[in-house]
Amino acid sequence: MNGAESLIRTAVAAGIDTCFANPGTTEMPLVAALDAADGVRAVLCLFEGVATGAADGYARMTERPALTLLHLGPGFANGIANLHNARRARSPVVNLIGDHCTWHAHADAPLASDIVSLAAPVSGWIRSVRSASVLAGATAEAIAAAGHAPGQVATLIIPSDCQWDPADGEARPVESKPPGAVSQEAVGRVANALRSASKPVLLLGAMGLRGRGLSAAARIAAKTGCHLVAETFPSRLERGAGMPAVERLPYFPEQALETLQPFDLIVLAGARRPVAFFGYPNLPSSLIPEGRRSEILSEPPEDTAAALEALAMEIGAPVSVSLPREAKKADRPIGALNPASAGAALAAVLPEGAIVMDEAATSGGAFFPLSAGGPPHTYLSLTGGAIGQGLPCATGAAVASPDRRVIAFQADGSSMYTIQSLWTQARESLNVTTVLCNNRSYRILQVELARAGIKEPGPKARSLTDLGHPDLDFTSLARGMGVPAVRVDRAENLVLELERSFATPGPSLIELML
Amino acid sequence: MNGAESLIRTAVAAGIDTCFANPGTTEMPLVAALDAADGVRAVLCLFEGVATGAADGYARMTERPALTLLHLGPGFANGIANLHNARRARSPVVNLIGDHCTWHAHADAPLASDIVSLAAPVSGWIRSVRSASVLAGATAEAIAAAGHAPGQVATLIIPSDCQWDPADGEARPVESKPPGAVSQEAVGRVANALRSASKPVLLLGAMGLRGRGLSAAARIAAKTGCHLVAETFPSRLERGAGMPAVERLPYFPEQALETLQPFDLIVLAGARRPVAFFGYPNLPSSLIPEGRRSEILSEPPEDTAAALEALAMEIGAPVSVSLPREAKKADRPIGALNPASAGAALAAVLPEGAIVMDEAATSGGAFFPLSAGGPPHTYLSLTGGAIGQGLPCATGAAVASPDRRVIAFQADGSSMYTIQSLWTQARESLNVTTVLCNNRSYRILQVELARAGIKEPGPKARSLTDLGHPDLDFTSLARGMGVPAVRVDRAENLVLELERSFATPGPSLIELML
Repeated sequence: MNGAESLIRTAVAAGIDTCFANPGTTEMPLVAALDAADGVRAVLCLFEGVATGAADGYARMTERPALTLLHLGPGFANGIANLHNARRARSPVVNLIGDHCTWHAHADAPLASDIVSLAAPVSGWIRSVRSASVLAGATAEAIAAAGHAPGQVATLIIPSDCQWDPADGEARPVESKPPGAVSQEAVGRVANALRSASKPVLLLGAMGLRGRGLSAAARIAAKTGCHLVAETFPSRLERGAGMPAVERLPYFPEQALETLQPFDLIVLAGARRPVAFFGYPNLPSSLIPEGRRSEILSEPPEDTAAALEALAMEIGAPVSVSLPREAKKADRPIGALNPASAGAALAAVLPEGAIVMDEAATSGGAFFPLSAGGPPHTYLSLTGGAIGQGLPCATGAAVASPDRRVIAFQADGSSMYTIQSLWTQARESLNVTTVLCNNRSYRILQVELARAGIKEPGPKARSLTDLGHPDLDFTSLARGMGVPAVRVDRAENLVLELERSFATPGPSLIELML
Repeated sequence: MNGAESLIRTAVAAGIDTCFANPGTTEMPLVAALDAADGVRAVLCLFEGVATGAADGYARMTERPALTLLHLGPGFANGIANLHNARRARSPVVNLIGDHCTWHAHADAPLASDIVSLAAPVSGWIRSVRSASVLAGATAEAIAAAGHAPGQVATLIIPSDCQWDPADGEARPVESKPPGAVSQEAVGRVANALRSASKPVLLLGAMGLRGRGLSAAARIAAKTGCHLVAETFPSRLERGAGMPAVERLPYFPEQALETLQPFDLIVLAGARRPVAFFGYPNLPSSLIPEGRRSEILSEPPEDTAAALEALAMEIGAPVSVSLPREAKKADRPIGALNPASAGAALAAVLPEGAIVMDEAATSGGAFFPLSAGGPPHTYLSLTGGAIGQGLPCATGAAVASPDRRVIAFQADGSSMYTIQSLWTQARESLNVTTVLCNNRSYRILQVELARAGIKEPGPKARSLTDLGHPDLDFTSLARGMGVPAVRVDRAENLVLELERSFATPGPSLIELML
């Protein structure tokens, strides 16, 4: 057994079953080891940002890490943007990076660079091994580290001689650190605050937005009348019939402040203290309105679901809450296609159990409220603001959840950072419907220019926010990567094409001309 | 005048005329300033790796830096792979990265990350400004730093309040450090070595491969009979009629060692001491065969062209050498398309003054020797091994050289990392002919698997080196981005399509079914 095989066998023993790969020469022994040691599915991605974003999507759905297999510093660098998003999502991800042989490092060969410096900003754990004999143990540590509550990116750098040199065998799995214990002091403090508050709100994040956390939150709301608001960009939110209605904190700071304005108590449960996505002149960093009391019930790595359950018990909330189990689908829109009718169409035909990855940006606003009472579904969002996450994350979610329909609700500009995802969807026959909103602009930047007081942008500013000239044809791009595609410009046609896609196994793309 | 305007005015005063941009919210004042202060062309790229690769290509052709405009850490990270190549090419590049406002940094907003840690591995100079008043001065320093001999990547991080706050005005240009003086000691030592050598070779790199350096090298060869060999991956090499014939050091270490085996003296002129691209079992790091004498005439940042001229004078070389000025075009191939006939077709119809960006990998070998005596042309290569450089570099070279035909000789796998380049080529009506070699595989990895002793790769290893299933259709991808495209599978049709493309202004793509 060589080092590479000891790594794969260790990973299998630790429950790893998927590797999103874009390998090069320094990873050849690992590529071969995927065949030598059974148990890990190898998914080829044509760009590293697809691999890392897919690992994030996979982790959000399974709550377990996948491997990525990446080529030296530059290959890893191509995956950083989506690892940034994974870090903000607290997704467990294990990066395997092949490096030059230990005895070749001094040569500073063309592809050599400082991988640790590149990896540090997105990795909670980094290790570079120096011999094949320690590789299995380091792999077990990396997998455990990725799973340390609440989840993080672990990066293992493996010189190629440590892959091909002989190794003793696999290593036993190492336990991940579990979530921190619930703070009874915090539970008591928040319970007291809730008793004295006249209008409280529970700001939920992280595990507070998955099934167990939301059930407890619903019980707390039933007892106290508090509102439930989700952090702006949840890593994963369970929604629809059977789940409590949860509003999202708006993106722009003025609107977020206005949303929180009516409340005299803001309880943070898994959510970070809210801050503006960007700083603007004459607007604050903090989105807690002045004079409002805020209390932290729980923050990662504490167990937010358990903290919510403890709070429910402490305040004497009902043991369970009956929430409507019947989905109310929105009406099917007809007429011109625009962001409102696009969101309505998707809400009207949303299949039960769908996974919606929302990177639709300015085109996406209508869907969220319209689908609140719809069939149970999972909602994933762009956690770190690094655009180009939607298509990869949808790809990974589909690998993780083969029996569910994944909908990539996607803006045009963002899609072009990782459009190569479509090819992997075609190769793996993934059940992904990409709903591509083509408005021929970086619309958010046009909004931001106006917010910056630039009422009449000059020709260069207009040019840098304009995606026309030439217009992108996403049906042609999709077909070039083996994904069937169709273009629609009427809401009723979108409804029909969505239904057709949901009924057809494998990927497809619907281009919405907005 | 605000900080952003002071930056653009300073850049214009320092001779900057081009900005390859993929901006976001934290760069909006800079976007607006491009209109407020005239003189900088703004070129939108749909992915940051296109912007940084284009800046590299622009710099290789103009020997001046362009700006890139990038969005925070994740946006910059998407540009790192091609900045790695630019670093290895010693290309001057100035990155402008917008960052969160100084007063918002503490908030750790979703897009915040450690930009300096990301930038350090590829940047020779980094500065993060803290106020608008110092921005103009920092800009002048950044531009000068990029131009410090032999050229490097300079990265300026600019919080958005430093862009929108008032500034005093532009700063005067700062002088770049010129190349280091020629070492007369080295010239004398090399001259003596040449006199006593029986079979010397001049291994040329960097500025030794542009016009002045090559003229001097030809004189030295005329006097001493030494061979001329170029480093494996030159940033830029002038070739064809009127230029001396220069062989390239082969890629694989066995072949490189064999190439250098016959020589008893290896003189390094601008080239680094050659090392293996990757380490392999039982092969050395160094590509200087054992027992061979090697001497360094000049290495960056010294002035290699001047060193070659000084050496020519020292050894009493002729003042000029008459080289054939008439181009001998290769014969037009007919028959099946394969790497040999593809290279022959391109060599047969290569236009005078063409710029060939070669990222054709395993499909590209035939072109180089066949075009040696062809019309004068410029040859650019993948300097840092980070694939996905070809299409961006060709894009930037075309922006820099509007009167020349640029040929992106491109492998299929590599193209998919930065395929978004085609859109910028269409928008800017750039004269780029992309010759896309579709062999439906990462062929180099299949070769590397075999080199690693894996004679019969298993299904996963085969899958990770296979680009079929589904086949990519590059004509569909190109048309989706507004670039006309055609597919050929016969050598004679490739010849015709090349001629048609060269006669037609603007970009086009020819897909070669190999």
